[in-house]
Amino acid sequence: MKIQEEQIQIENQKDLASHVESLDFLSNKLTKQNYDVNAIISKLADFQVAIPSWALGAGGTRFGRFSYFGEPSNLEQKIEDVGIIHSLTKTAGAVSLHIPWDVPEDYTAIKEVANSLDIKFDAVNSNTFQDQKNAKESYKYGSLSNVSQAVREQAIQHNLDVINIGNKLGSKALTVWLADGSCFPGQNNFQTAFQNTQDSLIDIYKGLPQDWKMLIEYKPYEPNFYSTVIQDWGASLMLANGCGDKAYTLVDLGHHLPNSNIEQIVSILQLKGKLGGFHFNDSKYGDDDLTAGSIKPYALFLIFNELVYGMKNNPQNPDLAWMIDASHNVKDPLEDLIQSLEAIQESYAKALLVDQDALKAAQLDNDVVKCQEILQGAFRTDVRPLLEKARLLSGGVLNPIKAYRSLDVREGLIRERGKNTIATGL
Amino acid sequence: MKIQEEQIQIENQKDLASHVESLDFLSNKLTKQNYDVNAIISKLADFQVAIPSWALGAGGTRFGRFSYFGEPSNLEQKIEDVGIIHSLTKTAGAVSLHIPWDVPEDYTAIKEVANSLDIKFDAVNSNTFQDQKNAKESYKYGSLSNVSQAVREQAIQHNLDVINIGNKLGSKALTVWLADGSCFPGQNNFQTAFQNTQDSLIDIYKGLPQDWKMLIEYKPYEPNFYSTVIQDWGASLMLANGCGDKAYTLVDLGHHLPNSNIEQIVSILQLKGKLGGFHFNDSKYGDDDLTAGSIKPYALFLIFNELVYGMKNNPQNPDLAWMIDASHNVKDPLEDLIQSLEAIQESYAKALLVDQDALKAAQLDNDVVKCQEILQGAFRTDVRPLLEKARLLSGGVLNPIKAYRSLDVREGLIRERGKNTIATGL
Amino acid sequence: MKIQEEQIQIENQKDLASHVESLDFLSNKLTKQNYDVNAIISKLADFQVAIPSWALGAGGTRFGRFSYFGEPSNLEQKIEDVGIIHSLTKTAGAVSLHIPWDVPEDYTAIKEVANSLDIKFDAVNSNTFQDQKNAKESYKYGSLSNVSQAVREQAIQHNLDVINIGNKLGSKALTVWLADGSCFPGQNNFQTAFQNTQDSLIDIYKGLPQDWKMLIEYKPYEPNFYSTVIQDWGASLMLANGCGDKAYTLVDLGHHLPNSNIEQIVSILQLKGKLGGFHFNDSKYGDDDLTAGSIKPYALFLIFNELVYGMKNNPQNPDLAWMIDASHNVKDPLEDLIQSLEAIQESYAKALLVDQDALKAAQLDNDVVKCQEILQGAFRTDVRPLLEKARLLSGGVLNPIKAYRSLDVREGLIRERGKNTIATGL
Amino acid sequence: MKIQEEQIQIENQKDLASHVESLDFLSNKLTKQNYDVNAIISKLADFQVAIPSWALGAGGTRFGRFSYFGEPSNLEQKIEDVGIIHSLTKTAGAVSLHIPWDVPEDYTAIKEVANSLDIKFDAVNSNTFQDQKNAKESYKYGSLSNVSQAVREQAIQHNLDVINIGNKLGSKALTVWLADGSCFPGQNNFQTAFQNTQDSLIDIYKGLPQDWKMLIEYKPYEPNFYSTVIQDWGASLMLANGCGDKAYTLVDLGHHLPNSNIEQIVSILQLKGKLGGFHFNDSKYGDDDLTAGSIKPYALFLIFNELVYGMKNNPQNPDLAWMIDASHNVKDPLEDLIQSLEAIQESYAKALLVDQDALKAAQLDNDVVKCQEILQGAFRTDVRPLLEKARLLSGGVLNPIKAYRSLDVREGLIRERGKNTIATGL
Repeated sequence: MKIQEEQIQIENQKDLASHVESLDFLSNKLTKQNYDVNAIISKLADFQVAIPSWALGAGGTRFGRFSYFGEPSNLEQKIEDVGIIHSLTKTAGAVSLHIPWDVPEDYTAIKEVANSLDIKFDAVNSNTFQDQKNAKESYKYGSLSNVSQAVREQAIQHNLDVINIGNKLGSKALTVWLADGSCFPGQNNFQTAFQNTQDSLIDIYKGLPQDWKMLIEYKPYEPNFYSTVIQDWGASLMLANGCGDKAYTLVDLGHHLPNSNIEQIVSILQLKGKLGGFHFNDSKYGDDDLTAGSIKPYALFLIFNELVYGMKNNPQNPDLAWMIDASHNVKDPLEDLIQSLEAIQESYAKALLVDQDALKAAQLDNDVVKCQEILQGAFRTDVRPLLEKARLLSGGVLNPIKAYRSLDVREGLIRERGKNTIATGL
Repeated sequence: MKIQEEQIQIENQKDLASHVESLDFLSNKLTKQNYDVNAIISKLADFQVAIPSWALGAGGTRFGRFSYFGEPSNLEQKIEDVGIIHSLTKTAGAVSLHIPWDVPEDYTAIKEVANSLDIKFDAVNSNTFQDQKNAKESYKYGSLSNVSQAVREQAIQHNLDVINIGNKLGSKALTVWLADGSCFPGQNNFQTAFQNTQDSLIDIYKGLPQDWKMLIEYKPYEPNFYSTVIQDWGASLMLANGCGDKAYTLVDLGHHLPNSNIEQIVSILQLKGKLGGFHFNDSKYGDDDLTAGSIKPYALFLIFNELVYGMKNNPQNPDLAWMIDASHNVKDPLEDLIQSLEAIQESYAKALLVDQDALKAAQLDNDVVKCQEILQGAFRTDVRPLLEKARLLSGGVLNPIKAYRSLDVREGLIRERGKNTIATGL
Repeated sequence: MKIQEEQIQIENQKDLASHVESLDFLSNKLTKQNYDVNAIISKLADFQVAIPSWALGAGGTRFGRFSYFGEPSNLEQKIEDVGIIHSLTKTAGAVSLHIPWDVPEDYTAIKEVANSLDIKFDAVNSNTFQDQKNAKESYKYGSLSNVSQAVREQAIQHNLDVINIGNKLGSKALTVWLADGSCFPGQNNFQTAFQNTQDSLIDIYKGLPQDWKMLIEYKPYEPNFYSTVIQDWGASLMLANGCGDKAYTLVDLGHHLPNSNIEQIVSILQLKGKLGGFHFNDSKYGDDDLTAGSIKPYALFLIFNELVYGMKNNPQNPDLAWMIDASHNVKDPLEDLIQSLEAIQESYAKALLVDQDALKAAQLDNDVVKCQEILQGAFRTDVRPLLEKARLLSGGVLNPIKAYRSLDVREGLIRERGKNTIATGL
Repeated sequence: MKIQEEQIQIENQKDLASHVESLDFLSNKLTKQNYDVNAIISKLADFQVAIPSWALGAGGTRFGRFSYFGEPSNLEQKIEDVGIIHSLTKTAGAVSLHIPWDVPEDYTAIKEVANSLDIKFDAVNSNTFQDQKNAKESYKYGSLSNVSQAVREQAIQHNLDVINIGNKLGSKALTVWLADGSCFPGQNNFQTAFQNTQDSLIDIYKGLPQDWKMLIEYKPYEPNFYSTVIQDWGASLMLANGCGDKAYTLVDLGHHLPNSNIEQIVSILQLKGKLGGFHFNDSKYGDDDLTAGSIKPYALFLIFNELVYGMKNNPQNPDLAWMIDASHNVKDPLEDLIQSLEAIQESYAKALLVDQDALKAAQLDNDVVKCQEILQGAFRTDVRPLLEKARLLSGGVLNPIKAYRSLDVREGLIRERGKNTIATGL
């Protein structure tokens, strides 16, 4: 299933008048305050977030999974789903594959599908937290950190294989998320586990093509419930530094202890030139993987405020890999992703409205009230017309959720795929 | 110091054109969506939040306190400060006194001051967490829960005295916050402490005038760091039920464990007709007492969404006592309170924009995406023009912080009071 | 597989001398301090904890599950596993079934198996968090709280069926754990969900045999990640009170927000006569379901201290249903359960050593240091000889883990069952 | 007041027989298991923990402070108090001064007092979180991180002064704890604050004598409630690395987000040779500063397990500075400190009982059950006889709390000092 340009035009006709009116009002107001509205819209239009291949089916919890009808049953269909999201939002121009769930059978064919939908292949993800059928070694007690050399070698080789697959598709980064850790005190020797991980990562790093990055994710707990080898940004950074210049820390918003100040982590990593990527989602309790911006939108805005600052002021930091890592089972996955994209763009737009010069001046004056007024002023602005305009200019729809429903996309997918397909993934 | 009407009019002239333009746009848009804009503005204008007398001086932490110049040095000056806030915002038409910090010397005079500023006396607060000079008994090991009958009797009598003071001023509620608890396992017998508290509260309840309410606050920790006698809403409700119909639970936003779903607590208490009052503030870690809406504005909106629902659908629940309980030492306290009031009004306005019928329909359809769109749609709306209009209609200023600064209020207070006054309070 | 008495005797011979020496020393010491050592041992011997049927296979997380060899593939084998644990520890004389995972095919046969192993049928557990094959209605959006009457009725009927099954086996209690809640703000109407749940529970309650109890579990989050209908003890107690005298609150140690003071909850529920049951496990982050006592043994001791106090001083509270609800995938499940049982008995023994009279006297003196000394004195005592003696007197082994390994139990089970069986459960 | 040797001998006579019996039993048992009991006792006797000068008076919270009678009113009396604790426990042979609360008036006299009591001067602590009378600049908005160069220079100079004072007394380390941070989003530029802090620390570092260490403490929040400049171990380590080889991270147990795995942090820092010091206390909610071991003794044991491992296996890491940083207002401060010392020694003793070879073997086998048995086996052992013996050999008392009370120490202090003295500190 593919959304046609005419369909988009018809959809946009419905809301165009209202959009123009809102944009005029906002644009006029912002221009009076010396904002360059077109520049902001242009930045929004350029901002692209990768969709992870595992978010296109229903997510589950350890207590069960409720399937969604019309799930993609192979990689091609997954990319088609991303294509649908992208054609509506023009913000999802990339897919992030998870190996071995998404090993292409025919590389040329897959690349053609992606190409035809204007979808790039973003960072590839390895999986050493599950045992694969017929695998010689088990990851039950860890992978890159395992006490067994044979297990570590299998896990290293898997990562090298993933790089190889990604390379054929045009990816430029490997994301390593390790579930390694322990469930009980004493189970692991922390130092041995850390050093094994460092050594394994170095072996993988050596296999990295010249123009690739390695993104090292951290997480304090789950699926291990006493310790995780790469528990926080400090550990990730230490390991990245141990690998070399092409290794970076990747921040997943859900991978933090309660009350963490994530925006500060993001800021300091950029200062050190070591923030490599970002996984968007939201959470109230743990790694809940909820829709981005659905629980703590102000926190997301504060993070974007740091990202915008860093993108401008920290040339030492590379371009970031952006990905959604949210997936839940009570929503249509495509609608869920569209809502995440909308929230991400909204936060980005609001962060672009923060008057950095005024903020700096207020900070130098210790005018805390003013600092807060500046941030809240940006956050309280209704930026939806800017997002609409950015989509309109890029050929997307004014209102993606509305269009998705109006175009009966899910019904079309069910017609094509049936009700009983199950997407690979969690 | 008192702000004059002419000053307000002059201030408002500056921003009037911009306000009219913004309000027209928003009003027009909302009217098309069938909102009754005037009704919303009218509700905002009616909404009044009490200012606690202890928030008018600089707050402190256990590590120290940095004084603010021009602090009010007596009760009359505290009420004058509330008057200043109220004249600007028209939202702070009440003061909540804390005894013994604010015992009036001349009741008639104090009532006249308050009256002239259109300030009412909201719930009065007792203090049994500090020892008063020359007090016979010490609260070191608790007050209403103390193992010593003499201590309990002193604490009960203090609460009765507070009721008496409040009664002379026109207050209609007593707020009881107990610091009672324990710092170490074993220090308290939980059951004895609970029963002593229940018995003490009943004795106080008996002294409550017919048209008064007793508001029982809960808090999981601090200043006791192992247990608190009234640790959560369940304990507070149990004690309120044990007292009688005039006893209610009071929710302070900062008094919860990490990740608590406060909006659900608020909702269920209203269902049972037992939510009596509300203390606004914000926090990232504990009872941080930060400016309302400064950290988690979406959570504040979700709470207001339940409050608005309850005010409409739960006649079994009484009118609520609203109070700010935030106070910090890096801002001018009056500016801090104005920012809190603005955030509270903003959340209320957005909650009033939630289309309850559409939400209910989406809930019945299990259309989770739509439910989220409805809430986010309301939250994303820039409602500041509605707040401005409500203030304008009530005789306040369009932009309170701006006016406060433009009118050199703090400088005026320093001129009147000097730099070295210290307000009673924490 | 069944462990024979002779095997146990042979095992015990190995450690008997060492045991006698240790017990003599401790017994002598405690007797000097006026403890009735035999009474304590007798209480330990009487203490029985139910094993949940789902803990006998490997547990899993949403990221995967690593199977264990020799898992029980049917209910009879599950009960045999409990029999093995019980024959070694003499503390696991009950099994708690989960329906529909464990519906007996032949009730008489199952009862005979259980009887022959001295295993009773404890509380039965219903399951409305997963959809069963061919079920008419889905629990995707809730069960007892669902907006759809048809779903609620199916869930009510399921609970009535579970009561019926339990009744045939001799169970005397139904445990209701609801996964119901919401993943996103707005998804649920909190009040409707709560009232639906109350009404559904009342319907189930009506089907409860005269001598049965209904145990209502609470949990703040997971698998729903924004709200849970029965989020805390306050909500559970409210619902129990709404049902009647036979409805109680059940406390699962892992079902609390960070830093909760669980011992206080336990104490207050006993004071009100409403603590019905207990699920043991341990956790560092969330509902981690780790081995009891493996992370916070002092907290477990403090909880037992309240339980011991309540069992003596709160005749208004009924006998409690004790169950382990821990299960993890990096240990042999039977060894895991044995470790839990050992930790539970240890905590109970230490709580029995708390000198309640001395503690009360110290509390009345506000002698906080002494209170702490009393609790720590009990906790620091090495009570393992008492547990050994209790097992010895009951026909169990001195050292269960050692015996389990020495007797090659797992190897025996694998011989009988093979490597590829999979137990029903999570 | 000074405790005499004869008094100690008289006290010890009372409990000697019981001690000998218990030690014999334990010693015998451990020896059979191949432990070198004398070596363990010797290590315990050598282990010394510094007492912070501010813990000798009553602690307080922001809600108030309840004084204790007989508080030390000057530095000499503070050292006398440490002397009392040390004479009883023989574990508190050092004091850690806090400047400016404890600036000596007469260095020779103070050193003589300390010397006569066998008390050394451990790390000195600077204070830039409070304004001192007549200080030119205020720390209201930060010290080493302040946007104002003048403030930073004052704070740097203060630290240099503190080094100078410590140097005269024989201290060999400076502990820097910064309260710097922000209360509201936007108040600080994270990167500027971090870089200012780094630069300031480097300036202080340059003033460090050759044989000194700089210990950099971290803390996630309080007294700032939105962000702290040195928020976690990663930030502290980064700053230490930026200073040089003599700069280390200092871990305070209470300075972590909920559920942090502190033992892993300790372990990894030792691996990197960068763990410099340790502040002992305990907490349930935040930086509660409760008595060490009073809330989570197993966590303290796990931390000591890593420390013992590191002290043996990480020659790259220096000797650690140990200090208690607990202080509370519901206990006699000296008794509180004695309870902390006892809990620390207990944890150390139990960690020394962990069979590291067996643990390593079990880890290599992924025998998680065995790993847990080994740790729990050590923890469950009643090691109090070993502590008693260590004290006995060193000239201390068998039972410090009992002796403290039997010798009427507090009454003696009150006789000497009166009831109304107030110790400097929080």
